Order: sequence, then C-alpha cells, then structure tokens
Amino acid sequence: MPERYTVGVDFGSESGRAVVVRVSDGEALAEAVTPYKHVVMDRNLPDGTPLGREWALQHPQDYLDVFQNAVPEALKASGVSPDEVIGVGIDFTACTILPTRADGTPLCFLPEYAARPHAWVKLWKHHAAQPQADRINRLAEQRGEAWLPRYGGKISSEWLFAKALQILEEDPELYTASDRLIEAADWVVWQLTGVETRNACTAGYKAMYQDGHYPPPEYFGALNPAFADVVQTRLQGGVGAELAPLGGRAGGLTEAAAGWTGLNPGTAVAVANVDAHVTAPAAGVTGPGQLVAIMGTSTCHVLVGDTLAEVPGMCGVVDGGIVPGSYGYEAGQSGVGDIFAWLVKNMVPPEYHEQAKTDGLSLHALLEREAARQAPGEHGLVALDWWNGNRSVLVDANLSGVVVGMTLQTRAPDLYRALIEATAYGTRVIVENFEASGVPISELVIAGGLKKNRMLMQIYADVTGRPLSILDAEQGPALGSAMHAAVAAGAYPDIAAAAEHMSRFVAHAYQPIAANVATYDRLYAEYLTLHDYFGRGLNDVMKRLKSIAGAASQAVPPLSEEAASLPGVTA
Amino acid sequence: MPERYTVGVDFGSESGRAVVVRVSDGEALAEAVTPYKHVVMDRNLPDGTPLGREWALQHPQDYLDVFQNAVPEALKASGVSPDEVIGVGIDFTACTILPTRADGTPLCFLPEYAARPHAWVKLWKHHAAQPQADRINRLAEQRGEAWLPRYGGKISSEWLFAKALQILEEDPELYTASDRLIEAADWVVWQLTGVETRNACTAGYKAMYQDGHYPPPEYFGALNPAFADVVQTRLQGGVGAELAPLGGRAGGLTEAAAGWTGLNPGTAVAVANVDAHVTAPAAGVTGPGQLVAIMGTSTCHVLVGDTLAEVPGMCGVVDGGIVPGSYGYEAGQSGVGDIFAWLVKNMVPPEYHEQAKTDGLSLHALLEREAARQAPGEHGLVALDWWNGNRSVLVDANLSGVVVGMTLQTRAPDLYRALIEATAYGTRVIVENFEASGVPISELVIAGGLKKNRMLMQIYADVTGRPLSILDAEQGPALGSAMHAAVAAGAYPDIAAAAEHMSRFVAHAYQPIAANVATYDRLYAEYLTLHDYFGRGLNDVMKRLKSIAGAASQAVPPLSEEAASLPGVTA
Repeated sequence: MPERYTVGVDFGSESGRAVVVRVSDGEALAEAVTPYKHVVMDRNLPDGTPLGREWALQHPQDYLDVFQNAVPEALKASGVSPDEVIGVGIDFTACTILPTRADGTPLCFLPEYAARPHAWVKLWKHHAAQPQADRINRLAEQRGEAWLPRYGGKISSEWLFAKALQILEEDPELYTASDRLIEAADWVVWQLTGVETRNACTAGYKAMYQDGHYPPPEYFGALNPAFADVVQTRLQGGVGAELAPLGGRAGGLTEAAAGWTGLNPGTAVAVANVDAHVTAPAAGVTGPGQLVAIMGTSTCHVLVGDTLAEVPGMCGVVDGGIVPGSYGYEAGQSGVGDIFAWLVKNMVPPEYHEQAKTDGLSLHALLEREAARQAPGEHGLVALDWWNGNRSVLVDANLSGVVVGMTLQTRAPDLYRALIEATAYGTRVIVENFEASGVPISELVIAGGLKKNRMLMQIYADVTGRPLSILDAEQGPALGSAMHAAVAAGAYPDIAAAAEHMSRFVAHAYQPIAANVATYDRLYAEYLTLHDYFGRGLNDVMKRLKSIAGAASQAVPPLSEEAASLPGVTA
Repeated sequence: MPERYTVGVDFGSESGRAVVVRVSDGEALAEAVTPYKHVVMDRNLPDGTPLGREWALQHPQDYLDVFQNAVPEALKASGVSPDEVIGVGIDFTACTILPTRADGTPLCFLPEYAARPHAWVKLWKHHAAQPQADRINRLAEQRGEAWLPRYGGKISSEWLFAKALQILEEDPELYTASDRLIEAADWVVWQLTGVETRNACTAGYKAMYQDGHYPPPEYFGALNPAFADVVQTRLQGGVGAELAPLGGRAGGLTEAAAGWTGLNPGTAVAVANVDAHVTAPAAGVTGPGQLVAIMGTSTCHVLVGDTLAEVPGMCGVVDGGIVPGSYGYEAGQSGVGDIFAWLVKNMVPPEYHEQAKTDGLSLHALLEREAARQAPGEHGLVALDWWNGNRSVLVDANLSGVVVGMTLQTRAPDLYRALIEATAYGTRVIVENFEASGVPISELVIAGGLKKNRMLMQIYADVTGRPLSILDAEQGPALGSAMHAAVAAGAYPDIAAAAEHMSRFVAHAYQPIAANVATYDRLYAEYLTLHDYFGRGLNDVMKRLKSIAGAASQAVPPLSEEAASLPGVTA
C-alpha cells in the first residue's frame, strides 16, 4: 500500500504553520511558516483608525495567506505529490471570532466597514469585553444557569458571547450588518471547502453549548433585548442546530482553495479544532487518566474523562470537546513561562549574563544549570505563582505573586527554581481538584516549549508525584491537525486509532524521585496554606494593594522643599 | 579665651578613625583613619590556626595602631597643638571582649596562648556562642530573672556572658589563665591611662548589669559551677563594684600613650562608650522624645527616657546607658542597608547598570531616582523586611523576607522602594511599641550612611508620620566621643551642656506629607497583618522552610536517567 500524507495547519497568535505528515506513522516530512503580515493590531486598524485599550484584532487575509504560502512551501519541501495528500486539518487559537456576511465575506473586507474596529477579527486576547463578561456572569448566577458550573463558575471576557455583545452594544449598526459571528477556526475551513460548519470544541468551550443547546433566547434577551436571537440568527443561521464532530469531514477543497494550496480539489478537510485540544491526541492521549499540559507562557491543561463532573475553577467541560464520545476537560494556569521570562528579564544581575555568554548558554539555560545543582528545598523559598493572577480553582485575576523566605543569601537561581516550583504546585492544585471531583489523573503529558527544560520537568514529576510523558514532535498542534485530517479522510476510523499510529511521545520520560517527592510534599503543604490564606479571603491584601495602586496614579510631591535642599543622594 | 580641642576616636569593625574637634562649637578640623591590619579573623588566627564557623576575632594590636597612627595624623592635619587638646574620648563596637592578665596584657600577646582561638578578641559579630546564649536565656526564664525583661526577653549570643561561658567551656585552661574579661572599649582606655574602668553603657547593655548589680553567683553557677564567680573574679576583680559613668574622666594619658598619640601626658581620657550610644548627643539628643536611628547595614535605635519601662523586643534599657541620670533605651533592626545592597547586587538587570553608567550615577542613586518618581503605593507591593531575621519586637533570627503583590509589571525600582518602605514599617513597629509601653517618641533623628538617601528619608517621615532631624556631621560617633572628652576634661558640666554647643544636626529636615501619610497608614496596616501572621506563630512557614533547607544539603540525583538522555535544555 502506497504511503499517504495529510497536511496539518496550526494558526497561532502571530503566524500560521503547515506540516506535511505521513499517515502511517505520524512522521513530519516538512514544515513551513507564514508570519501574519498585520500580526496583532492593538493600537490601530490598517487605515490608522485608533483602537481602545485591551483591544487585539487580526486581519482575516493573513490567515488565507498561510494557505497560499506555508502550505505549498511545506508541500514542496516534503517532496510529496498532491495526489498522495488525502486530507487537510486545521487548528486555531480560540476564542477568535469575526463577523461576516451570509456568504462568509468578513465585514472588514467591505469598504463601508473597513474603518470600523468591530468589523475585524477579535483575537483570543482581545480583553475589551470585560464589562459584557461581568454582566454575562452576573445574570447567569442570578438565573442559576445550569451551564455556569461547567465553566468553573465564571466565563471569560475572551469568549464568544462577551465579544458578540460588545459588538452589538458598541456598534449596533455593524452588528445588524453581520449575518454570522463565527470562530476564525470555522471560517478558514469554510474558505477551504465552501461549507459552513460549527465545530463541537469551540461551541462547547467558548460559546456555552451544553447538553445539546446554547443558552436560551430569554437569557440573551435579558442581557440586551437585541441580543435575544444571537444564537438563532448568527450562530445557527447557516448551519442549523447541529455541531460538527471533531475528526469529521467538513467538506472537500474547492477549486479556489486547491489553487491556493497546491493540493487537489476535493481533498478532505477536517472539521476545525483548537490548538490545545488537538495536541492531546498528538501526544497519544485519547482516553481518561492523562492530563495534557501545554506549557508555554501560560499553561493549558486538557483531559479526557469518561464521566461528567463539575470541577472548581476548570475552564470548561465539553461533551466531545476533545474526543467525540468523551468529556473533554480544560483547565489553565495564567502565568507560567511568562513568570520565568519576567525573572530572566528583570531580576538577573550582569554577572549571570556574562557567565551565560562565557559558557555559550542562554540565560534561561544558565539559571537552569545553577538551580539544578540544588536539592529540593535548599533555597528555603516558597512562592505563589500568581504574577498574572490565578485562573485555576481560585479564578481571580486580582491575585498577585508572593515570595516567602528571602534572605541576604537568596540569589537569582534560587528564585528561578522557586518560581518553577510554584507553578508546579499550581499544577498539583489542579490535579488534586480534578481527583477530588472524581476525575482521576495518573500521569502528566507535557507539550509546549517548556518541555525542553529538564529541571523543570523533573520538578513537575517530583511535585505532582506522577510520571511525565513528553510530546515528541516539534509541531504538536500541527501534527494533531494532520491526524484529524487522516480521520476525516477515512484513513483511520477515529482519532484513537489515528493516535495509535501517528502520535509521538516519550512515555514516562520523567519519573518522580521518592526523596524529592517527600520534600515537595512538605513544601506543597506550605504552598497550600498560603494559597488559601491569600486566595480564599483570609487576607485580601492583594486586592487592597491593587486598589491602592490604582488610586496612586496621581503623583504627589515626592520630597518636601527642606529635603530637596539637602546634599546629594547615596553614593 | 583661646580655643580648645578634643580628640574623638571611633573604633569600627574594620578600622579606627580619629577626629580633632573644636570644643566651642563641635567643628571637626581634621580626621584620619587607620585600617586594622588583621581586619576580622573569621577563618584563621595569624599563625594559621583554623577557626570554627561563626567565629569573628580581632587583634588588639590593631587598636593600639589607631592611637599610634590615626590620632597623630589627624592632629597634624588639624594644625592644632597638643597644648590646645584637653581631652580624648573613644567609642567602640560592642559587645567586643578579650581575656587579659591582671595588668591588662591580652592573653593572645603571650606566646603560650597565641595559638589558642579563645585568647583573642571576640568581635561583636562572633556568633559561635549561640548554644551558651540559649542556655543563658532558658535558665533566666526558668528562674524568672528580673533582668530578662529589660532586654526584651532575650539576650544575644553576641553579649558578654555568652562569649565568656564559651571560653570557659571550650578552653577551660585559658579561662583559668585569664584574670579579666573586658570590653575592648574599656581595654583601650586602660591602655591610654593605665587605669582599669568599666563603663556603665556596656555593663548595662551587654553584661546584664541592672538595678546596681550583675546577676547573682547562683545564677551563673547554675549555668556551670566554674562560672559562678565570673563577675567577682573577672569583671570586678580590678575595679570593684563601681561602674564608671559616661562622660566621666577615666584618667590621664600615660607617658607611653602620650608618645603614641603625640598628645601631652595627663590629657584627660573619657570613660569608654559605644558607637551607637555616643551618636545620640552628637545629634543633639540628650533627653526624651527623640528616637535616634543610626542607619547603615542594620539600624540601631537609641532613645533617652525619663522613666523605666519594659518594651517588648527592645535590646535593652539601662540606667545611665546613654546619659547619666536617665534611662537609655536601645532597639534595632537587623537588616536595613544590607537588604537594599542585596537587591542592588543580586536583583538588578544589566539595563539599569548601563543607565547608571550613562547618567553618571551609582546604581543605588539610579534606583532611588526611578523609585522616587512613584507615588506611595503605586508599585502595588508590600514586603516584610526580615531578610536578616527580626530583632525588634519579634526577636527571631529564623524569620525571613516576604514580598507580596508581584506581577509581570514589577521592576527593580519597585522592589527597591518596597524594601525601603518595609524597613520604614519596621521602624514604625518599634516606635509604636515604645509609645504603647509609655515611652513617647515625637520625632526621629537620623544618623548613619543612609541619611543621604533623600527618598528613603522622606518615606521614613511619611511612614512614621513624624518629622526627621538629620545628624549633620560626617563622623557622628567620633564627634560624640570628642564631646564626652570635653565633659571629661571639664569644659562642660555634663553631656547635655556639651551637646548644646557641640552637636550638629538639621532640625526637622524632613516633614511628613499628609497625603503620603494617609496612604502609608493603609499600607502599614497590611504590613502589620502580615507581620503578625508570619511573625507571631499563625503560620510558622519561615521556620519550617529554614528547617527543610537545613536538611536539604545532602544532594539527591537531580534527574532520572531517562530524563538525562533526552535532548537539550531550553534555548
């Protein structure tokens, strides 16, 4: 039987990446990247129209450019013929949405709307819909909406209805002009196939689709009378009530899309998916018990479960949200790699920079080397990893970071290690919350850039007391998309079968070391005590500090006149 | 009437400094410094004999070198004739003690003892007598010794009897060979005058002399039978029960000492004193209400009181300990400037170093400039200033530092300011404890190197809500010693009269700014809550972290073999 191939396309925050993958074993033959020409628009539209604070927009043409550049480049580099390519799959950031006409034309492509910010794609990290999200949460609590606990009791301003309501309320004319509000993930599949679909993953995680339906019109109408029919008109208007299952075939490549990509018309295109969720099968996870942690600037956790449970602080549980037929759980830590990057950028004195240069290492690698020489607990520190708030269990953006145990002997590698440990404790809190809610976790599967930091991985194994398997592919999401393409093309009956052949991981690459586990059990107990003290209302100092800081912006005279006339500053 | 002069000699931890001062107005005409040739011996004796951990010794000849070098140099530079010099005064670090023969010969000067560590001067920061101090405290508590509360409930391993007991128990033969155990302060006065005295200050603050007597022989005998007569034989053996009052005349310069110093034989020599205590009159403080803070790597607070009170956590209250006829209070903060120095050395990235170079500033000055641009509370941080433990109120060396409120936006100047504020909150705790114990404090008088940091000074005024006066002399302790010399020589009837003419300060150089005081009241409340939470047993995490760190020294394999075989570290 001749080899067959699929193309996985991963749409990130700043670029799109295409990978050509062999269907028999998941080997990636070639890849290519297309950076988005407009990257993230957070200050101006292309015509100069200024944007408000917390806005983050994208240009839909940048996505199409990926099909026209990265895909043919990867195909060419792979040496694979279009005839050997049986499918295309995509994954996307989410929730990333745009308003379109009924034929899929983005409103921002129309000259009459190009100067209106709400006509453009709202990227996942567009945070200007917080007032709408607050109202959505408040009303859901008041009404006791059954879907609310499925999202840990709070939905994010990043999600679909918050963004949609912001459009309606800030630019009602544009809202009226829109026939669809659609995930960019579904929109690019629509562009490839000419077929409009709504994937089960984003509908569940980002649009509160639970138990076979979205929230009812009365709920939306109570938010804003003009919003009552948002689901019926703008989500289901083109596709009806049915969601497309992950791994399903959305359609075949149109002639036009075949022209862009260099693939054959009619090539199977898989239903859209989300970057984090598609990573699970890429790492071999299609069943319960394994927590997939995609570790980068922040960490996203996904987990397949047999049963439906409501876990405190989880981001969401969705039927078929990762694998059709199972419950997909999602959780997260809002600051991980970005905390380490903060330390490396802001708290490391020149001697380490010079040492790193001398030793030919990055500063991260140098700090890792130095910190790895320590035994657990040797630095005498424990930290709360809330530099970017807490979105797991506590779900509170107004929490902040703490370090306890500083002495005159504390050095940068000590803090580096303590911050890594703090994020590991944060992961353990999530693991224990899942288990306490009846969702067992026997091991962690690590994807994302941080998996290369060996010390960090060992610490995670030791802190959680669980073995760590490691995704062994450079482009995990793109591999996952290529696997879904193989299922959509019929090469495998389902994603579990595809994962058996195509997934890439090193099983139990890291094992917990008993002596370390014992020490970390003691340190984790300290973390938990501080976690509850600062996080559960015993001492709301963090919120008061933020409030004082917020009120402190008006400057006061820093020095009295007498003082200003005294001689100089410390030499 | 012709001008007259005195010489003040300040014996620090690493050098001695002589200043020639005009008696009429306190003007310093010239100064000279002699570094100690052996500085601090903390690894070996001069012959190579190794020392244990936490040892810190000095060489008595280094003190005599100061009389033979710094004093004649300063005299020469001043242009003052020896006939115009009416007195010499000294101040010293304390408790710094040595064992001598009955004639004052240090045992370390005798060839048969020169290789024995206990024969040498134990510098104040010799910390190897902690086991003895622990027993001294425990026994005093058990017996309900009345002097214990006069030292905030705990005496330090730095003090006389802990060090003396260490000599007895670790080198009993040497203890037996010693006729005296004497403060280096009193010893140098003895060398100048040939007259043995014991000053009221060190006897009170470092040797538990209270209400006219040292602790009784039964107490010392219960510590160790051979220690029962330590006071009678080794403290009072040469001088009897009488203490010498501060500002008293110990004697006149001997012919030999006149030869060393270039001064006239018979020149009045004042009773010995301690660096911190002698600074109070130098800054004009000889009565109640003004807290003198000598701010350097740590802060020492001295305060004159009309009444005897027992203040929690104070280092000591001594009748005549600062000014004869009044109660002298001492308190302290164990980490102040050294915490800022820690930050500057260990937590400031290269960009600030480069900026400082560009702007021609020290890194301290640059951070001060940047931090001074902020309004109080703007950085959103609150810290506990326990990097070096806490010796005020809580009196616990096992406490450690905390920072609360860290975010991805936190930068080095934010931390710099937060640490300064934390030490100011620590000072306010001390001020409020004194006031709660019936010892009022209406203003702060600042001496020491940190008085040059204007932002820091303003923060202290704002946090304490009190005006700050500033010692206006480069060499505060030496000025104070010169003032005591003037009293000893009869130029003034007492130190208060001397201070009226000779002290140097800028009154109320810094005034609290009302808006800042209000914000700092709120932040101080947060500090207090955390202070009590971490410091008063609600959460002993700091002690447990230190205990875990202490046990962690044996290294464990940092990585499993599987992990070690995986590809590289984070780039």
